[in-house]
Amino acid sequence: MEQKGKKTVVKHAKLSKELIEDAAIKLVKEQGFDNLSYRGLARSLEVSPQSLYPYVDNLSQLEVMVIVHYLNSLIDELQDNLIGVSGREALEEYAKVFYSFTKNHLEFSKVFSAAANHPDSSSIDDQFKRMRKILEKAMHYIDADHDTIMNHITLLVTNLMGYVVMQDLNFFDQNDPLPENFESNIKVIIDSFEN
Amino acid sequence: MEQKGKKTVVKHAKLSKELIEDAAIKLVKEQGFDNLSYRGLARSLEVSPQSLYPYVDNLSQLEVMVIVHYLNSLIDELQDNLIGVSGREALEEYAKVFYSFTKNHLEFSKVFSAAANHPDSSSIDDQFKRMRKILEKAMHYIDADHDTIMNHITLLVTNLMGYVVMQDLNFFDQNDPLPENFESNIKVIIDSFEN
Repeated sequence: MEQKGKKTVVKHAKLSKELIEDAAIKLVKEQGFDNLSYRGLARSLEVSPQSLYPYVDNLSQLEVMVIVHYLNSLIDELQDNLIGVSGREALEEYAKVFYSFTKNHLEFSKVFSAAANHPDSSSIDDQFKRMRKILEKAMHYIDADHDTIMNHITLLVTNLMGYVVMQDLNFFDQNDPLPENFESNIKVIIDSFEN
Repeated sequence: MEQKGKKTVVKHAKLSKELIEDAAIKLVKEQGFDNLSYRGLARSLEVSPQSLYPYVDNLSQLEVMVIVHYLNSLIDELQDNLIGVSGREALEEYAKVFYSFTKNHLEFSKVFSAAANHPDSSSIDDQFKRMRKILEKAMHYIDADHDTIMNHITLLVTNLMGYVVMQDLNFFDQNDPLPENFESNIKVIIDSFEN
């Protein structure tokens, strides 16, 4: 499992939450979210599992840390790219950033889905709230009541995430010359908001 | 982990692929897909792990067995409910059956997503093919070329699965009085096929 030279070696005295988080993200990138373990993390940092306790209590807390990190990165990119963009262009940009984020982080689908194992985590919930808020703001140009806007958000978000999950599953026929249909389908959805 | 009285007790001599499958499904229902294990299955059947070998080689094969079982059940329900139904009604029915299946099997989201861990399984792929084929047939009433139909299938399926995943994640704000927006969003999507 360990790869010499790729290891994040840390003097025990220098452990910090940030270092631990970095090492956890690195593990997830290299070995997948399913293989994230408390012992594996300790090993990659060359410390004993016990010395991690002051920073992360258990695997569950470690997982939440990783999930929140990914959501945070995604939200940062969303915010960066939505500055100065308005109207339906903002929604198209949201979709585009979401999509390219998942392409650049193939482990994201697993990480995101793992949030289902932490239904009581307020820090994950906070990130979800931020993702929704950004969409709500981007939808200001649409003249509709609150419930309708919530419906629109549901439709757009389920489609974004569904696309990521289904691609991950290889659900779509690879032999069939599928056109680059993500963008066109997002346009269909955004069109429907304007009717 | 074991619950007396709920156990599926089997005489070693009576083991069969069907019995093993039933016990595996029961385990997944009771303890979740993430807790499916080779040893746990053997324990629930009161046999040694070794005696399972002739029927299932390893955990990976066991997982595929469970995934295929669920997809099969879903497809059975889809087929049953789509007999004698045509036009957009068939698509609405497909969505309805899919949705209620996931409501009746809360473990389905995890099971379905786990297919991503078995990208080379031809038996899972066969089930996906069947799911697509049913949709393709249901879309016969739409006058469009093959690529467009594939786009429509992508849009509908990603939305169905995305909805299931996002609900599982509690992505949507529970405090917000979200209307029953699944059906209305499916209608929006099906409407878009007719334009």
